[in-house]
Amino acid sequence: MGHNKSELLHEVGQLVAQLSLMGVKDVVLSPGSRVAPLALAFARHPDINTLSVSDERSAAFVAMGIAQQTESPVVIACTSGTAALNYTPAITEAYYQRIPVIVITADRPTEWIDQWDGQTIRQNNIFGNHIKRSFQMPDDLSHADAKWYKERIANEALNEALSYPQGPVHINWPLREPFYPDAEEQFDFDASSIRIRKELSSEPYLEEEVWEEELIPLLQQNKKILIVAGQSQLDKEVEESLSALPFPVVSDVISNYGHLENATVHQDVFLTPEKNKDLQPDILITFGKSVISKNLKLFLRNNKPLEHWHIQEAGDVPDPFMSLTKVIRSSEALFFDQLNSINFEEEEYIEFLTNWKENNDRVKAQKADFFELLSFSELEVVNHLINSLPENSTLHLANSMSVRYANFIGVEREDVKVFANRGTSGIDGSTSTAIGHAIANPDELHFLLTGDLAFFYDRNAFWNNYLPSNLKVVLLNNHGGVIFRMIDGPARQPELGEYFETEQRTSAKYLAEEYKLKHWEINSREEFYYTFDEFIQPNSQACIYEVKSKKEISKNTFKAFKREGMK
Amino acid sequence: MGHNKSELLHEVGQLVAQLSLMGVKDVVLSPGSRVAPLALAFARHPDINTLSVSDERSAAFVAMGIAQQTESPVVIACTSGTAALNYTPAITEAYYQRIPVIVITADRPTEWIDQWDGQTIRQNNIFGNHIKRSFQMPDDLSHADAKWYKERIANEALNEALSYPQGPVHINWPLREPFYPDAEEQFDFDASSIRIRKELSSEPYLEEEVWEEELIPLLQQNKKILIVAGQSQLDKEVEESLSALPFPVVSDVISNYGHLENATVHQDVFLTPEKNKDLQPDILITFGKSVISKNLKLFLRNNKPLEHWHIQEAGDVPDPFMSLTKVIRSSEALFFDQLNSINFEEEEYIEFLTNWKENNDRVKAQKADFFELLSFSELEVVNHLINSLPENSTLHLANSMSVRYANFIGVEREDVKVFANRGTSGIDGSTSTAIGHAIANPDELHFLLTGDLAFFYDRNAFWNNYLPSNLKVVLLNNHGGVIFRMIDGPARQPELGEYFETEQRTSAKYLAEEYKLKHWEINSREEFYYTFDEFIQPNSQACIYEVKSKKEISKNTFKAFKREGMK
Repeated sequence: MGHNKSELLHEVGQLVAQLSLMGVKDVVLSPGSRVAPLALAFARHPDINTLSVSDERSAAFVAMGIAQQTESPVVIACTSGTAALNYTPAITEAYYQRIPVIVITADRPTEWIDQWDGQTIRQNNIFGNHIKRSFQMPDDLSHADAKWYKERIANEALNEALSYPQGPVHINWPLREPFYPDAEEQFDFDASSIRIRKELSSEPYLEEEVWEEELIPLLQQNKKILIVAGQSQLDKEVEESLSALPFPVVSDVISNYGHLENATVHQDVFLTPEKNKDLQPDILITFGKSVISKNLKLFLRNNKPLEHWHIQEAGDVPDPFMSLTKVIRSSEALFFDQLNSINFEEEEYIEFLTNWKENNDRVKAQKADFFELLSFSELEVVNHLINSLPENSTLHLANSMSVRYANFIGVEREDVKVFANRGTSGIDGSTSTAIGHAIANPDELHFLLTGDLAFFYDRNAFWNNYLPSNLKVVLLNNHGGVIFRMIDGPARQPELGEYFETEQRTSAKYLAEEYKLKHWEINSREEFYYTFDEFIQPNSQACIYEVKSKKEISKNTFKAFKREGMK
Repeated sequence: MGHNKSELLHEVGQLVAQLSLMGVKDVVLSPGSRVAPLALAFARHPDINTLSVSDERSAAFVAMGIAQQTESPVVIACTSGTAALNYTPAITEAYYQRIPVIVITADRPTEWIDQWDGQTIRQNNIFGNHIKRSFQMPDDLSHADAKWYKERIANEALNEALSYPQGPVHINWPLREPFYPDAEEQFDFDASSIRIRKELSSEPYLEEEVWEEELIPLLQQNKKILIVAGQSQLDKEVEESLSALPFPVVSDVISNYGHLENATVHQDVFLTPEKNKDLQPDILITFGKSVISKNLKLFLRNNKPLEHWHIQEAGDVPDPFMSLTKVIRSSEALFFDQLNSINFEEEEYIEFLTNWKENNDRVKAQKADFFELLSFSELEVVNHLINSLPENSTLHLANSMSVRYANFIGVEREDVKVFANRGTSGIDGSTSTAIGHAIANPDELHFLLTGDLAFFYDRNAFWNNYLPSNLKVVLLNNHGGVIFRMIDGPARQPELGEYFETEQRTSAKYLAEEYKLKHWEINSREEFYYTFDEFIQPNSQACIYEVKSKKEISKNTFKAFKREGMK
């Protein structure tokens, strides 16, 4: 070695101390030999909480959930080899959902790559295009410049992860041998000589003259102004400004603005690409990330606004409605505050708002007694779940039907936080993410709404020693992907069962028994209404509420709800 | 679209027909909407077997196992988004283990990347450095040149995957919309106009003058010649030549040459880096891929030969013993045949062979009654399993302790094929790979030896509708990674239980019940010897034989076996 073990232990301790100083409070470790010194240092640092999760695919999603709840960077650390590859689904989700996950992968020194050594692959830059930045630690830290570089890497990595738009970063650390402290050896967490490079960022806002020259004339000429909120967590300042505007605010279930007076939540039900011409905006203002409503996307692509402004302070800007005309580099809070300070002649704008609200209210009214006359269906379960959510709960929606069902029903509660992995819309990590939420926020109840494919795909989410009692899973088990029955194409194929729905006679009861989870199995409406209240109460263990549903009924109810709502 | 649906269906049918013509017989599909036309075409092609496996991580390992058994290229196909990322652990394993897996990923057209569309990520070249080659299908196939390119891509991809050294290739196919054939529509599998570009390869061998000038003088001057076989499957021609040579053939358990008269299998037990000077070779000849024996590696690095020749007809050559002097670009069969045609004065070489064999025989003798006096341990289970394997069975060894145990015990059977995922030595897909073997080769029994970490990590291996009755899993369940107890460093850490072994009170009985597998739970030597014969018989369903073992005893027995064998 270019330096002895105690020097290396010193460097590891200092890195962990530096990360702690820079705001890292939670670390999800996966076991391995090469990563051992890092794991031990994280575990022993007094200000850092560590979890150990064996399946790296799950570990990374758990970390992402924690980062979402704490709104702080979370570290994941694993050993060399394919461990890092199992992180890739969550890292890609974090990349598109803009969540600061700091990946640290232990590696072999470069000269041992491709030499048939165990657990040795090409880890440098392994996250490819789905990472904000990748760093390679020097193989040897004995030179002073290398030590300076190591400290700089941690500085740059954290700052990069936290700069707008946030996202994951990767530090790959080649270590010559696994090494372990002796009984008397301590990690050096003394941070007095660590140089932190803090980034002081400003909150960007548009100059008055830009408003006056570029925006206000348009806002005064055009009376049909539509705001669409993409995936967001509620921002109190934005909320205050939005609620005072005389414009409709289209809020998908993952936008978390559905409770505003001027919000609509049922657009995916009432919109059609061809009808609703009176709902076509002159000016479309968007903020946040993706929207779920397929019918909103089709409607706006088919009924393009004259102007489409997207508010995003930095970074690449997607154009999902194919209509973008201005990218506004302002913070959302300042933009809407400025927008709100304009004196709109309310009565001129209110008709457009009323049109949107009337459509929304029609679907809202429809919900009240829609299910009574129909057979028991998944949509009814979702409707009742959303109506019954206890105060201040979190609702995590799995892909793919769960989030669509919930978006049809809508959430109009200010105290309920809704999450969904809509960065990549994968089914691979919803349960793990929800577990991360529940672990990070133990005082609130966390509901996961999921289907059987997503649930069993991510079943290793339960393979850890931290299953929180505030986790409540509603599992819609129709033994296969009902989404394929919703679409005309696959529904017509003789291979529907085997190759699309991948039908299986699965049940969560074995898993619940294995992991000591409370489990309900529901086969009828009677059982459902009889037991559901018990399920949503706080409980002493994590719960799985499994509704055995019928594909055909669920499909027909969903379609009927849409048909009714479009009228 | 640049072309209508029926044209696209035609192109899909033609691609599938082309792949079939080029030798693809097995396809592992994972469900999704974008990949649907491909999935349907594969499922409907008369000469192609298809499986549907929902968890892509498992699907890719299953495919790899099938490719190993059939020695033919296997296609995996998935939908857009993170599905492809879940393939990465298996693809990387296939890359290092040189297995021809053809990955086809459905994608969105390029213009929709990064536009917040569901399941849309940057898929082009997503396997980074761990793929032989990546291809991007044209977005639009309406131009004749694009059609020619599409056909060429399939030609080049298959030829690349099958050329030496074999390995995985990736075809990313952007499709504008999911599309499905109507009831009356057929895929066009007529191959008459498909142009196949066949690659006729030669078997390289060394010219006589190279032998005479470069090799024979060295072989005649130096009498200590050692052959080390890396990971291989048995080649009958190589076997014949090797067995006739007066040199020791060091055969790890994954080399599959342990049955040769002149082979040693216990080198990991009897070798020590510092002793055994009489075993130091003058000339080391290696072939195949990685070796497992850590002590062999350390011994050879510490006792370097004058010459180290590695036989590999093409591709990068690792240097795991840090001793390589000649890379010999010959087929293994021809090289050893030529070597065998040299007239060696046997008595001059035989002493070195005898020295190696004596060491090996000492350990072999030690095995006979070693376990009798000791407590019941994992090593005893492995020893008995290997002694009892039925004729013509396959033994798949999971990482990480399973393969080491088996390498200590050694396999000296010509009729038993041994596999292990030693390309990357990950614990992530051993069960899925073994299931692939068992599916592809239904007439033989397939034994998987695995530990609880590897077993539960890859538990989704069981989440499909094809669990073969010839699959027999021996699960050494010590509730955590016993490997960490074997190493001095972690064993001394107070965090051993939580962060290294990741202790859990797991049992396979729930999983066995869930998937209708036959299950034994063994807690003592008596139970073991009473039930084991029943387990190894052919059975009507897949079996899990779970041995609840004790970490401390297993560790001590393993260490005692090594101590005894080193004497």
